[in-house]
Amino acid sequence: MAAWSERLAGVRGVLLDISGVLYDSGAGGGTPIAGSVEAVARLKRSQLKVQFCTNESQKSRGELVAVLRRLGFDISEGEVTAPAPATCQILKERGLRPYLLIHDGVRSEFDHVDMSNPNCVVIADAGEGFSYQNMNKAFQLLMDLENPVLISLGKGRYYKETSGLMLDVGPYMKALEYACGVEAEVVGKPSPEFFNSALQAMGVEAHQVFLRSRFCMRENRGHLSF
Amino acid sequence: MAAWSERLAGVRGVLLDISGVLYDSGAGGGTPIAGSVEAVARLKRSQLKVQFCTNESQKSRGELVAVLRRLGFDISEGEVTAPAPATCQILKERGLRPYLLIHDGVRSEFDHVDMSNPNCVVIADAGEGFSYQNMNKAFQLLMDLENPVLISLGKGRYYKETSGLMLDVGPYMKALEYACGVEAEVVGKPSPEFFNSALQAMGVEAHQVFLRSRFCMRENRGHLSF
Repeated sequence: MAAWSERLAGVRGVLLDISGVLYDSGAGGGTPIAGSVEAVARLKRSQLKVQFCTNESQKSRGELVAVLRRLGFDISEGEVTAPAPATCQILKERGLRPYLLIHDGVRSEFDHVDMSNPNCVVIADAGEGFSYQNMNKAFQLLMDLENPVLISLGKGRYYKETSGLMLDVGPYMKALEYACGVEAEVVGKPSPEFFNSALQAMGVEAHQVFLRSRFCMRENRGHLSF
Repeated sequence: MAAWSERLAGVRGVLLDISGVLYDSGAGGGTPIAGSVEAVARLKRSQLKVQFCTNESQKSRGELVAVLRRLGFDISEGEVTAPAPATCQILKERGLRPYLLIHDGVRSEFDHVDMSNPNCVVIADAGEGFSYQNMNKAFQLLMDLENPVLISLGKGRYYKETSGLMLDVGPYMKALEYACGVEAEVVGKPSPEFFNSALQAMGVEAHQVFLRSRFCMRENRGHLSF
């Protein structure tokens, strides 16, 4: 593996995952990962641009940032790229009016979205919201549409909570894909469009960015220290 | 298409689907399909053996037969091949102890099955039973097993009720397959093993059977009259 100095040559920005990189979520707001608060602070003092890229879709960006600030992180809403705001942008651009099968914690991100007479389905990690009734409503709506559009905020299989493994949005996305014979559009990592929107927010090109994410651990085997 | 007399030459048995062939299920026990009560009666008086083959998994065989008898059909439990009893047989043969994610209406079929310390998951069309909590329990159990076994009673995408289309077991099977990285074993149509168990119950070979099922409508385009 190349030395860090060599690998970081030409880097103008750093893209950081949040859950599992900055902190571990859980009861009581979660706990920061050792050294991460200081690492973010040093990055912010450097010449590098910093953006945080997450698939979090049970909290609004405001809530997530509040949690992280309480843990000591220097972070603001504008520095966070998350699937919900990216989805709102897509809905607006394409004139889509969603039926939302999402967690109540992220619903405020869709406050200004027209949801009358839905012509698409948006699913996210809804947790207990993944009832048979809600899934069936999403399914019936897709079956009624001439051009069914299913947007999924990420496609994770599961995540870990203090109480154990929990089903993420991916399995429910697969269920609707199979039931309706459609293919979901994934907004969130590892979609290239999603990473691109994070790069645009930073104003840098892909080759100028250092990425620290659970999705690229094989690439970044070493521990990054600042 | 060959004439019926030619197509039926050598036929010793008739295998009939139930829902959509004998009757349409729905509120109040459903309604027989025109001519089907008489057709079954004539078949029973003929030299042909008759077996009924269904993916019904919200009712026990006893309940299903009671519904059909009330509608006028001459039918008994032993003449019905259904996924739940076939699954019980598999569990017994392989020493499997299931966690059942099924409809309460079919639970009595599993009365004599050992469910202590589960080492597999059995899912069927559970309807409202497909809560996030129940799905997560099935998922966690599969993830904890060294050799995860997922048995699905059918893999239908959806079915029609008077109130509209309803999600069947298939989408939930796909959800667990994706979440756990396993492939389900399907018990029920269109699995060849399932059709074979119906043939065994009749004591006839595959080439000696006439099949009337929604699963082979393309083969049997004509209307069969007795």
